[in-house]
Amino acid sequence: MDVSVKVIGESVTMDEKEALKWLRDRMPVGDDCFVLESGKTNLLLTTDMLHQTSDFPDGITSYTIGWRAVAASLSDIAAMGGNPEAVLIAYGAPGFNMEELEEFIAGAETVCKKNGANIVGGDLDRHDELTIVTTALGKGNRPVTRKGATPGELVAVTGDLGRTGAGLEFFEKGEVDRANELFRFEPRIELGVQLAPIASSMMDISDGLARSLHQLSSVNDVGFRITGNKIPYNPSIEEIARTDEKKEELGLFTGEDYELLLTTPEENKFELAKIGATVIGEVTEEGVEMVKGRRVIPLEDEGYVH
Amino acid sequence: MDVSVKVIGESVTMDEKEALKWLRDRMPVGDDCFVLESGKTNLLLTTDMLHQTSDFPDGITSYTIGWRAVAASLSDIAAMGGNPEAVLIAYGAPGFNMEELEEFIAGAETVCKKNGANIVGGDLDRHDELTIVTTALGKGNRPVTRKGATPGELVAVTGDLGRTGAGLEFFEKGEVDRANELFRFEPRIELGVQLAPIASSMMDISDGLARSLHQLSSVNDVGFRITGNKIPYNPSIEEIARTDEKKEELGLFTGEDYELLLTTPEENKFELAKIGATVIGEVTEEGVEMVKGRRVIPLEDEGYVH
Repeated sequence: MDVSVKVIGESVTMDEKEALKWLRDRMPVGDDCFVLESGKTNLLLTTDMLHQTSDFPDGITSYTIGWRAVAASLSDIAAMGGNPEAVLIAYGAPGFNMEELEEFIAGAETVCKKNGANIVGGDLDRHDELTIVTTALGKGNRPVTRKGATPGELVAVTGDLGRTGAGLEFFEKGEVDRANELFRFEPRIELGVQLAPIASSMMDISDGLARSLHQLSSVNDVGFRITGNKIPYNPSIEEIARTDEKKEELGLFTGEDYELLLTTPEENKFELAKIGATVIGEVTEEGVEMVKGRRVIPLEDEGYVH
Repeated sequence: MDVSVKVIGESVTMDEKEALKWLRDRMPVGDDCFVLESGKTNLLLTTDMLHQTSDFPDGITSYTIGWRAVAASLSDIAAMGGNPEAVLIAYGAPGFNMEELEEFIAGAETVCKKNGANIVGGDLDRHDELTIVTTALGKGNRPVTRKGATPGELVAVTGDLGRTGAGLEFFEKGEVDRANELFRFEPRIELGVQLAPIASSMMDISDGLARSLHQLSSVNDVGFRITGNKIPYNPSIEEIARTDEKKEELGLFTGEDYELLLTTPEENKFELAKIGATVIGEVTEEGVEMVKGRRVIPLEDEGYVH
């Protein structure tokens, strides 16, 4: 969607993806964090909105909600290779139950502490739908942005994919303990810091691998060729997905895995392995595609719009 | 409400005010901003949630919503005597209409620019109820907190009170232009910076003067005696309120005027006048009361819970 289609007196309605694209043309948003120079340090700032209908499946605990909401913002700091310092939480809920709040804060504090951050403030509001907005402030010596990928480079991911997709399936099946555990992902702060010096571009996968590759492709005006059998799927995906299609749906097209996706020159292959990131393909001139056996298929720009 | 009333296995439900109080005992929240030392500067951080049912009356424009949401967070920076630098906005709405978004951003950008800040990022989310969470980052040389008031000092406010109360009345009467104008308040950044060196304690009035006085009273373990006829009411209040009761309801017990409330030693009386703040009474040993003619009446801890 282009801003030029705007017609005076006529309403133009956009979906979330179009609206985000329009916003990116309109103001300096687009990276995982905003970078503010402050003396010798770079401050990193990011905010994320999560809410009941789209982010909290039936069976999710308050502890997991607190963890996940904070971890989503910490993940944005990780995506720029920074270290988080402070987290603010705006908490809107239909009512305030002390046990729920206590659990929520325990989850939020646990993931903060594990990553060197503190909850330093927030806002509390009565709201019909449980809505959490987390803001994280971090610092980074050399923040890595989404821009910088060049054809010929390697593309790699941290951890494994499909954790959230599998979690959603377990929530549906009523296996809530398992699902909650999968939903409490580790933001990749340490890996982000280690990868920052060698990454030419980096982001976290918040809308699924396929959409993230398309985002990097569009920012860098490059393409990607991914090798299907190099993708590290979460072990629970192997267990829950009976077909290749299901595996790809959960692992490539379901969002919110919050692993890091990065590009780096070929010479850093061994460094990547040492740090523990998996090479899944290479940067090409154009097109986002996946090698599957002997075929090369396009990887559509589809994913979870949250 | 005390945390000790918690009974294992039994749910304790709190209202918003109780939940906020409980949170304050639980973690370092309570001031208008969190102060993070960063080298030689103090970073100020604050977040605010606003949403349709409690903050956006029928007739409010997208421009006013953008302005007001951002101004609410800038006001928190003003309350500590800081200068805002960056603003993040999380925007949740049932749909994304380009004109509405454009208007919203224009309002947000206008109040930012007037106060030296930039919108640097955000999040966009489909949400049943229009929900805006703004986060502001500022800097302050000597941040003024809510703590520091001493009996015998003066208590003063900036601008005038009742602007939001009057705005709400105009919205109800369908005079939306007038109402929107009243709703686009000026965050007191400049006044905050000028008042910071002489203020012993400061906050912004976000829940009405009465409640704000009770908050300062509780933090400082002091009381306040306000002189009724010294309160600077907004001119529109004089016009819309027929009785003293109505005037007080709109001016003292209706929230979100976002003027600054501060205490300062008596010797700063002339400095206050020069800056343009109005002395409304004095800090006492205990009790929050108002002199009304020959009577002294208690000023109840009532106000807008948002």
